[in-house]
Amino acid sequence: MTQLTRTITEAYEHASFPIAGHGKRNIQVLKDALDAYDGDIHSDKYGEGSVIEPFQERMARLLGKPAAVFFPSGTMAQQIALRIWSDAAGTKKVAYHPLSHLELHEKDGVKELHRLEPVLIGDSTRPVELADLLQLEEDVACVLLELPQREIGGQLPAYEELVKMSAYCREKGIKLHLDGARLFECLPYYGKTAAEISELFDSVYVSFYKGLGGIAGAVLAGEPELTEPSKIWKRRHGGDLISLYPYILSAEYYMERRLPLMDRYRRDAQELAALFNECHAVSTLPVVPPTNMFHVRVGMPKERLGPVIVAVTEETGFGFTPYLREDKDGGCAFEISIGDRYAELPKDRLREAFRVLDRRLKASASDSFNL
Amino acid sequence: MTQLTRTITEAYEHASFPIAGHGKRNIQVLKDALDAYDGDIHSDKYGEGSVIEPFQERMARLLGKPAAVFFPSGTMAQQIALRIWSDAAGTKKVAYHPLSHLELHEKDGVKELHRLEPVLIGDSTRPVELADLLQLEEDVACVLLELPQREIGGQLPAYEELVKMSAYCREKGIKLHLDGARLFECLPYYGKTAAEISELFDSVYVSFYKGLGGIAGAVLAGEPELTEPSKIWKRRHGGDLISLYPYILSAEYYMERRLPLMDRYRRDAQELAALFNECHAVSTLPVVPPTNMFHVRVGMPKERLGPVIVAVTEETGFGFTPYLREDKDGGCAFEISIGDRYAELPKDRLREAFRVLDRRLKASASDSFNL
Repeated sequence: MTQLTRTITEAYEHASFPIAGHGKRNIQVLKDALDAYDGDIHSDKYGEGSVIEPFQERMARLLGKPAAVFFPSGTMAQQIALRIWSDAAGTKKVAYHPLSHLELHEKDGVKELHRLEPVLIGDSTRPVELADLLQLEEDVACVLLELPQREIGGQLPAYEELVKMSAYCREKGIKLHLDGARLFECLPYYGKTAAEISELFDSVYVSFYKGLGGIAGAVLAGEPELTEPSKIWKRRHGGDLISLYPYILSAEYYMERRLPLMDRYRRDAQELAALFNECHAVSTLPVVPPTNMFHVRVGMPKERLGPVIVAVTEETGFGFTPYLREDKDGGCAFEISIGDRYAELPKDRLREAFRVLDRRLKASASDSFNL
Repeated sequence: MTQLTRTITEAYEHASFPIAGHGKRNIQVLKDALDAYDGDIHSDKYGEGSVIEPFQERMARLLGKPAAVFFPSGTMAQQIALRIWSDAAGTKKVAYHPLSHLELHEKDGVKELHRLEPVLIGDSTRPVELADLLQLEEDVACVLLELPQREIGGQLPAYEELVKMSAYCREKGIKLHLDGARLFECLPYYGKTAAEISELFDSVYVSFYKGLGGIAGAVLAGEPELTEPSKIWKRRHGGDLISLYPYILSAEYYMERRLPLMDRYRRDAQELAALFNECHAVSTLPVVPPTNMFHVRVGMPKERLGPVIVAVTEETGFGFTPYLREDKDGGCAFEISIGDRYAELPKDRLREAFRVLDRRLKASASDSFNL
């Protein structure tokens, strides 16, 4: 299994035309960003200084909140937001989707470090809806919504649904937190500004290394009642580093370049998803992606799909994915996030590569049938 | 008061010859380190990859431990070490010096996040001794020793005392953790390798931005029983960043250059401390520094000393300190850590600057007397 994955990974790494992402995550990414800045610029120092403070203010303005605090990670920023809302409400209960980052990827930090009691809301196949909130018990301090919901292919609730959920939480005195790891990526779908979406939430986290392609880092924005204690908690978590500037400067650099491209990434994702959906046994989730990301699901086991993808990459030069994971019903899946690379692909050759993929998938399925 | 501090800070920043540190903490520090590495080098990814794993192995070897884990900060690494030892022992009690970093600079993270119950041991004017450990209750999971003890001028216990404390803790089943933020800085005093000192401890933290002058970052080293769960806790803390390479590469780069210079920094500190001790109303703590750092204490209020230092800097070009803090008995104090800069100072002019400082201190004291 490891052997197989390695082969797909290698094929992707050696592909002439990888289709997803911005480019390799090598250290040139940071060198390019730093080249844009004068060497005399002073490091930030434990959250203060000219590198961090004006950037936080700029992010606060962009998100339409009075204040923003830079964090090394979203894991840290979000746990802290939930802890602050929990302490303020005097209840340990916080609610989020069963496939949220906190539930899947944080080793239960929110429970182990903060003793919070997560309540999982909604159905794991769709985003949270107002109907899910109506079933919540009274003593929930905070609801966390992830826009887009990454683990289901980047699905988004309708704006009207968001407005209803926001109004309901305000009425009930429940704080509404936005896991906006990919907030900028979903603005074209909503046709709204970041501030217009953030307005529906009491606290907002955004990431700088998803669609923006920075090195790492996050911001938590809200009223001072949130941001001021968040700095104390950042210190407690060990995240108040003497210097965060490698993340801040790269965030600033790539945000400037890529924030205007989010609609292009989304349209590219829709075009690419259509190409996948034309292939035998392949479907994307969602069928028409509202953001720059989607999942590709293939109705064959990864042991069978792996060699097909490697062969198509070797024949056409296009890299589809560096990995496959098992999916339900014996199939497999992978995630695509569109970045800078897609626009530079030779489109004729890309379409030809998908014809090759389709043909090989059919052949593989037919072999399988004949076994 | 803010006005005064700003003036000293400005004088120091504009001084031709600042006497402490390696140089300005500007972003050139990172640019210089990155220039030494090829842009093609792949980023680490959530604790894995060729940037982080070989570096961790190298640090483990240097510290004579089976494994080491890179952390964004010592605050995070140390809380996690104490938590793991506490969980293993089944007791919440951990013991450290009343002026330890955990007690002074971490906003009680160890209590607020990990629910540990610190026991403060020893006298705040000297390092922890065996006699302090003998008074400990039985149910302490871990003792943390800081070498050198920064907040008392970088004092060190004798090696024999360390050996006794280590033997006692082993006998009692108490884990011994080394806060080695400045471990490399104290090796010349002990005449030992990092591994020889670390051998006395069950877990060891070292920092990369103190004497080594990196950007940020730390390593926690020990047996796998410590390091493996420390990775899980790193994730929980939000410190398992997708990319830590800005800190890792700069740590590697500056460690290579400055690890061999620790004895020079120490001798320079001793020379400089002697110059301070010749001045009126000035004494250093310790009188003869065992490492590259010491505190300077002046028997006059900061409101009086500030203008003296500014005047001496303006007259001589030498920057002594960017700040003053109030000290006991109405005096004031500041900290000196010797780095690359000291060796490049024109020594004749430095001695002359100290003669000017001495003269102006005497004049200021005499003015005060005449008031």
